[in-house]
Amino acid sequence: SGELFVLTYGALVAQLCKDYEKDEDVNTCLDRMGYGIGVRLIDDFLARSAVKKCRSYSETANMIAQVAFKMYLGVTPTVSCSSAAGNEFSLILDKNPLVDFVEELPAERASLCYCNLLCGVIRGALEMVHLPAEVTFLQDRLKGDAVTEIGITFLRKAEDRKHRRN
Amino acid sequence: SGELFVLTYGALVAQLCKDYEKDEDVNTCLDRMGYGIGVRLIDDFLARSAVKKCRSYSETANMIAQVAFKMYLGVTPTVSCSSAAGNEFSLILDKNPLVDFVEELPAERASLCYCNLLCGVIRGALEMVHLPAEVTFLQDRLKGDAVTEIGITFLRKAEDRKHRRN
Repeated sequence: SGELFVLTYGALVAQLCKDYEKDEDVNTCLDRMGYGIGVRLIDDFLARSAVKKCRSYSETANMIAQVAFKMYLGVTPTVSCSSAAGNEFSLILDKNPLVDFVEELPAERASLCYCNLLCGVIRGALEMVHLPAEVTFLQDRLKGDAVTEIGITFLRKAEDRKHRRN
Repeated sequence: SGELFVLTYGALVAQLCKDYEKDEDVNTCLDRMGYGIGVRLIDDFLARSAVKKCRSYSETANMIAQVAFKMYLGVTPTVSCSSAAGNEFSLILDKNPLVDFVEELPAERASLCYCNLLCGVIRGALEMVHLPAEVTFLQDRLKGDAVTEIGITFLRKAEDRKHRRN
């Protein structure tokens, strides 16, 4: 059951909002905390999912959406590739369980990325498997967008990786 | 999967340890946060567990251990009654999933009740069903005790309740 987690996460965000006046600082802190979590969570993920090594960024993005999100949050985002270079992907969430108890952001917290911990988790986990990436929220239903969209940009070009491998 | 929750909880405790110098203040803050969570979680619990009204404190304590702990933490504490008046109970945890990633408390945090959020959750949830209670850690494996023990003292005597009902 995830309700205890979702409410505890809410308490964490509320505490950080007390601690930091600026939304940007809360966002940075959530991302940094998430990074620390991802760095540790990856071992659990690899052990329990028993997935094989991904052979492309596309495969990695799909693994995050279909295996990791399903395992830890119980939802499966849609994946789309958003760059010709093949290193940018979007995870699109119709439903985001982490905001189940959040009605809307308070007016004075309009720039808060409430779920920014998730970006850090993904970034930390990817770094541990030698896939440095930038991970950010591109859209957020809490901010009035139609969907919630997490952007993942792998920092080495797909071509570079192939080259390095050969 | 609870690992993401357990690690996020760890990040919350770490943040509070940054915020407050005194362990007692961290403990109080965790308890207060937990209370706020319990007040909301009880609706989810009643809806999903479909349990009937408990007829005694003993039944309530067993419900917390066997249904609520199982549902939210995946473990089932042993329950023992520790007062002749029948209003004090202990939940004894052989295994506490919330500390899965904690090796030991740092020396300078010897008075920290790492899992104090749980006490607040139980207290908040009980208050919502008109059962005011005191909930505290009596033993903690993180502090070198043999088991982890949560004490629940219902604040109205069992006899008073029967009297009120008649």
